[in-house]
Amino acid sequence: MSRDRLSATFAALADPTRRAILARLARGEASVMELAKPFDITLPGISKHVKVLQRAGLIERSRRAQWRPCRLRAAPLKDVASWVSRYRELWELRFDRLDEHLGELKEREKKH
Amino acid sequence: MSRDRLSATFAALADPTRRAILARLARGEASVMELAKPFDITLPGISKHVKVLQRAGLIERSRRAQWRPCRLRAAPLKDVASWVSRYRELWELRFDRLDEHLGELKEREKKH
Repeated sequence: MSRDRLSATFAALADPTRRAILARLARGEASVMELAKPFDITLPGISKHVKVLQRAGLIERSRRAQWRPCRLRAAPLKDVASWVSRYRELWELRFDRLDEHLGELKEREKKH
Repeated sequence: MSRDRLSATFAALADPTRRAILARLARGEASVMELAKPFDITLPGISKHVKVLQRAGLIERSRRAQWRPCRLRAAPLKDVASWVSRYRELWELRFDRLDEHLGELKEREKKH
């Protein structure tokens, strides 16, 4: 897998536990210990996920406190949003067509 | 890695060649042969990428023609957009704060 930044972001997001960690951090910073609590995963297991998120730039860890809180970095998520927004027209178009199609089906039903 | 659908989508997007294939298909359907042309990759190499995208539901292949054209499926991209949009407030907030901070710095510069 290529090591470009957007690929690293997508790879980091390809795991439900890592996405849940980000959802937790969106509400405020937390220690790895606090992050581990709601999950049925060992502390080393959570640490591994945190490291993947950190390498992808989605988390930064403060050095100011001994418990080194994790904080969400939103910039890579903004890049994901701007990448995917290029396709917006496409899915809106498809849903428009689906609507049209369903409309036609309903019209036909009325006639029969 | 978990096999949930959103994870499969993110994993499929974590490669620049696969994202380039989607960008090509956004302009219209294409055969695997046509998809391979702009890339410095063998046909089996492209086929492998197409299979990953197909398993993630990002591509569907028609059975109507012998050349079996690939077509983009936008629905998983819509799911990515709605997932990432939950974080929009966060990065907008951060940029607002940055703006505020820069504004304050400029004010201070004026005073000195």
